Amino acid sequence: MQETQYDFGLIGLGVMGRNFILNVKDNGFSAFGYDLDTEKVEALREEGGDRGRVDATQDLPTFCQSLTSPRKIMLLVPAGKIVDQVIEDLLPHLDKGDIIIDGGNSFFSDTDRRDAYLSEKGIHFFGSGVSGGAKGARKGPSIMPGGNKEAYEHVRPIFEAVAAKYQGEPCVAYLGPKSAGNYVKMVHNGIEYAMMQLTSEVYDLLHRAAGLSNDELHQVFDSWNKGRLQSFLVEITAEIFLQEDDLSSGRLVDMILDKAKQKGTGKWTSQNAMDLGIPVPTIDMAVSMREISALKSLRVDADSLYDRPKLPTLPKEELIEQAEKALYFSFVISYAQGLHQLAEASKEYGYELDLSQIAKIWRAGCIIRAGMLADIAEAFGQNPKLENLLLSPSFVDKVNGALPAVRRVASQALERGIAMPGLLTSISYFDALTTGRLPLNLIQAQRDHFGSHTYERTDREGIFHTEWGKN
Amino acid sequence: MQETQYDFGLIGLGVMGRNFILNVKDNGFSAFGYDLDTEKVEALREEGGDRGRVDATQDLPTFCQSLTSPRKIMLLVPAGKIVDQVIEDLLPHLDKGDIIIDGGNSFFSDTDRRDAYLSEKGIHFFGSGVSGGAKGARKGPSIMPGGNKEAYEHVRPIFEAVAAKYQGEPCVAYLGPKSAGNYVKMVHNGIEYAMMQLTSEVYDLLHRAAGLSNDELHQVFDSWNKGRLQSFLVEITAEIFLQEDDLSSGRLVDMILDKAKQKGTGKWTSQNAMDLGIPVPTIDMAVSMREISALKSLRVDADSLYDRPKLPTLPKEELIEQAEKALYFSFVISYAQGLHQLAEASKEYGYELDLSQIAKIWRAGCIIRAGMLADIAEAFGQNPKLENLLLSPSFVDKVNGALPAVRRVASQALERGIAMPGLLTSISYFDALTTGRLPLNLIQAQRDHFGSHTYERTDREGIFHTEWGKN
Repeated sequence: MQETQYDFGLIGLGVMGRNFILNVKDNGFSAFGYDLDTEKVEALREEGGDRGRVDATQDLPTFCQSLTSPRKIMLLVPAGKIVDQVIEDLLPHLDKGDIIIDGGNSFFSDTDRRDAYLSEKGIHFFGSGVSGGAKGARKGPSIMPGGNKEAYEHVRPIFEAVAAKYQGEPCVAYLGPKSAGNYVKMVHNGIEYAMMQLTSEVYDLLHRAAGLSNDELHQVFDSWNKGRLQSFLVEITAEIFLQEDDLSSGRLVDMILDKAKQKGTGKWTSQNAMDLGIPVPTIDMAVSMREISALKSLRVDADSLYDRPKLPTLPKEELIEQAEKALYFSFVISYAQGLHQLAEASKEYGYELDLSQIAKIWRAGCIIRAGMLADIAEAFGQNPKLENLLLSPSFVDKVNGALPAVRRVASQALERGIAMPGLLTSISYFDALTTGRLPLNLIQAQRDHFGSHTYERTDREGIFHTEWGKN
Repeated sequence: MQETQYDFGLIGLGVMGRNFILNVKDNGFSAFGYDLDTEKVEALREEGGDRGRVDATQDLPTFCQSLTSPRKIMLLVPAGKIVDQVIEDLLPHLDKGDIIIDGGNSFFSDTDRRDAYLSEKGIHFFGSGVSGGAKGARKGPSIMPGGNKEAYEHVRPIFEAVAAKYQGEPCVAYLGPKSAGNYVKMVHNGIEYAMMQLTSEVYDLLHRAAGLSNDELHQVFDSWNKGRLQSFLVEITAEIFLQEDDLSSGRLVDMILDKAKQKGTGKWTSQNAMDLGIPVPTIDMAVSMREISALKSLRVDADSLYDRPKLPTLPKEELIEQAEKALYFSFVISYAQGLHQLAEASKEYGYELDLSQIAKIWRAGCIIRAGMLADIAEAFGQNPKLENLLLSPSFVDKVNGALPAVRRVASQALERGIAMPGLLTSISYFDALTTGRLPLNLIQAQRDHFGSHTYERTDREGIFHTEWGKN
């Protein structure tokens, strides 16, 4: 019996896996799937049509025997121990030079461990984040692969074919060695947390301070999506306000419980940024807000105890115009923080990341895709060593132009007791980062006072200590 | 030759160690020190006077032979591998039932590991944070011990004698098993980061927005220290503004470089709070601000690129009065966040912490000691299950009374581009935590839209998913 040889193997035929494999097929490559679940295997065989182009099995040896050499096997399974288990199951059936691609959100140090382990066995390992959700997997995701550069050449044609396209350019690129791909995807998700939080704050302000209805909110976000705020998150937000509720007579958004869940990538971003010593406070705050949202009964109890200022409704048109600037500004800040973290991680972990390229592959396919990423890609293209996006000449005017409205929106929310933590944090970050002289001289004085921790001076080199209170 | 037997042993005769041992002696116990450094050993022998009360050696067997049974040996050495090394060196010379006390800022999971390791050998291990700096060690620190409850009885008389006293009550208590003491000290330091950041922001605002001189700042902080803001940090801040500079004709505070260092306990607090899912954003922001302060050259470059609003100077008296309220409010929020984290850590790690007792032992000796801790101890005393300090009836009026001024101060800083990240974060935390209905319903809608992550509803139980955009 002659085996058909398939170009690409995929393990884990959930929605993402099935969609990804059909995407591979649509783009001219043959693909073979593996899953333990009969139903998922059958579903793919049915949907795939031509068995010579797409097939699937529950039998691992059959799966491995059906792939061309070097085998290119992608895992779309939950992050964690299951990835290690699948790798162990695969190993007896692989040959040197074969390639395993972890398409999940694995923690980057797990990827480094697996990479080292598999390198010894002559197997290439890629941590390769995939963003775009189920639709992206089907129609074109953004793919963020890291691993062995030479081995990537075997994967490149397939990934470039299936990836989302931005003006014809595929939203995938080799990002760097080891866990570079996972790390970039982690920070992508951190930025995503920030942008979602900021979107929700602007919605809240327009709704509570100016009384916008869901239809009006739809119109606002829809019109913003046609301007410089054009982005996937603004686009789906516009859609969300229109969604009717099947179980009541109103809109679905009003019936959804305000307890937001998280799967950990935002938290990892914040925790690792702290290890690197890079400030990403808007991302930190987005993580905190998911936590605060989960404390629903505490919030309801506290709500009854405290006064909220009662102030007149704000004029809609003016607030909408200001809010657009606030959202633009705080999106810029979110990218600035995430990319600053990536620059430092690149040094610390030896990823040699190209930030312009990263911004480019985020322009389509992924959840944080946005029109402004073209500007960001250009800024880092012009100066690959740009330490922070706020130093880019092309953003100075944009940010300066937004600032008065940004401050106005923030003050109005503050006066009303409407929480806009992401926006306030973005402004705080901006104001601190653009202040040549901060008051942390006092903190150094305090530390030296109580703990003899020493300090530096503004006027000469050296390390100093003072016996405070002695003069 | 007859050996004198000493009540207490101490390893590590740096400033903290020497001061702690002299404190033990002053309080009626005999103490023996050990250090590899001859000079430190001799310095202690000289300063200690009566050799029957205080002595020291470079010889570990002599040190161990000189202690009464069960031996009580405190380590005041840098956190990290050196603690493990000292433990290994000690082990051959110890007997079952002996007690080792780690007085440093060890990471709590290291303490759990050491506790498990030493338990098997019949040795009791205490992670016991000590706060108060060099002066505190000499005159009375706050001590936060965790470990075996029965073994603590051997240590208790000495610790209660040397600890700071608040109205006669010693600022030390058995806090819980395993790493409870280290954990409480870690969060103490996280709160300390927040309070230091907040103090520096208020200094900056008064200085830049109302033009207060160092002498005026001294007066302001000194007067605050006589009111409800009475605290060690406000007290030393007042002192700092008076300190003359030996190397120039001005005040020292103005010559100190605004790059603040950190030793990691604040970062650990934030990172672990994220693991617990408890929001401590003011502490997170204090960590971010130390990072931003370190980016001095980036800040100087960015400063020249952006507009800072030019607004008239604010009237001093009014701003001082408002700033007092802002500092009070944000100190309350800092304690609320840290104590919330402790409540959750207590459940997660089985510490069985008594939050009222913790607030009590922080009332004197430690860096975050403050008059308001008496109120906080009372609040948790009245309701040991209080989930968050903001739910305490005794704080509602205080916070409500401060809020209008707090919002005013924050708006004025915002309008001027004066960064007050800790204050803005504290307000955001407050506003979010006291809002029964947050806009994170939108985030749940977005997550379900792009990732089929499902959502809950406000009107009925269950987990729901919608095919968005289909109606």
